Amino acid sequence: MRPQIPSPHVRVLLGKTTTIGPGKAELLQLIEETGSISAAARKMSMSYRRAWTLVETMNGAFRQPLVETASGGRGGGGARVTDYGHEALRLYRLMEKQALSSVRTEMEAFSELLNPDHLDVKS
Amino acid sequence: MRPQIPSPHVRVLLGKTTTIGPGKAELLQLIEETGSISAAARKMSMSYRRAWTLVETMNGAFRQPLVETASGGRGGGGARVTDYGHEALRLYRLMEKQALSSVRTEMEAFSELLNPDHLDVKS
Repeated sequence: MRPQIPSPHVRVLLGKTTTIGPGKAELLQLIEETGSISAAARKMSMSYRRAWTLVETMNGAFRQPLVETASGGRGGGGARVTDYGHEALRLYRLMEKQALSSVRTEMEAFSELLNPDHLDVKS
Repeated sequence: MRPQIPSPHVRVLLGKTTTIGPGKAELLQLIEETGSISAAARKMSMSYRRAWTLVETMNGAFRQPLVETASGGRGGGGARVTDYGHEALRLYRLMEKQALSSVRTEMEAFSELLNPDHLDVKS
C-alpha cells in the first residue's frame, strides 16, 4: 500500500462554521451524480440523517439553496444540485486546485518534516 | 460590529489527522510567546489537558518534537518551541499566506453567494 501523502485542504469558514469543505463538496458532488441524498450518504458511509443535516446547513449558509429535494419530501423523492449549487461547487473546486498548486513546493518541504511511520497508518 | 468575513484556511492532513491547522499553529505560536503550555492554553480558552494532547499529537506526527518541555515535567517547568517547530510553523504560515492569496478573487465571488444574515452571527 502506498503511504498516504498529506494533502492541504481548503475550508471556507463562516465565522466558525465551515460553509463548505472537502466533506460537503464530496456530498454535493455525489448528490449530483446519484440524484439522491440517501444514495450519496451511503457512498460516503454516512447516515442519511447526517447527510440531511449537512445539506440543511449548506442551504442555510448560502443566499439560495444548493440542493433541492423533489416532492417526495425528506424520505423519498430525490434531490438535485441547483445552478447555485453548481456555481458554489465550481468555485470551491477552483479554490482547492489553486490553493494546492500554490503550496506545492512548501508542501514537499513540510512533508519531509513529518514522521514517516505515521504515513503508513491507515486512517 | 463588522460582519465576519469568511476566510479560507489551510489544513495539512496526514491521512485523516490534521498534523497542523489554524488551531495548532496558534497554540505553537502562543507557547513560543509565553514559554508555557498552560499560559498558551489559557489564552486560547482551552484546557491544559487539551493543549497538552494537541502538543503530543503534533510531536508524534513529526520526525522531531515541535515542543520541548523543561525538567519541571507535565505540570511545571515550561515549554519551548524547538528549531524544528519553528521550521514547521514557518512553512505552515507560508502555505497559509500563499493559499489565501491564490484564491482571493474566487473568495470574493464565493462570498457573494453566502447568506449575509449568517455573517452577523457571532460564532
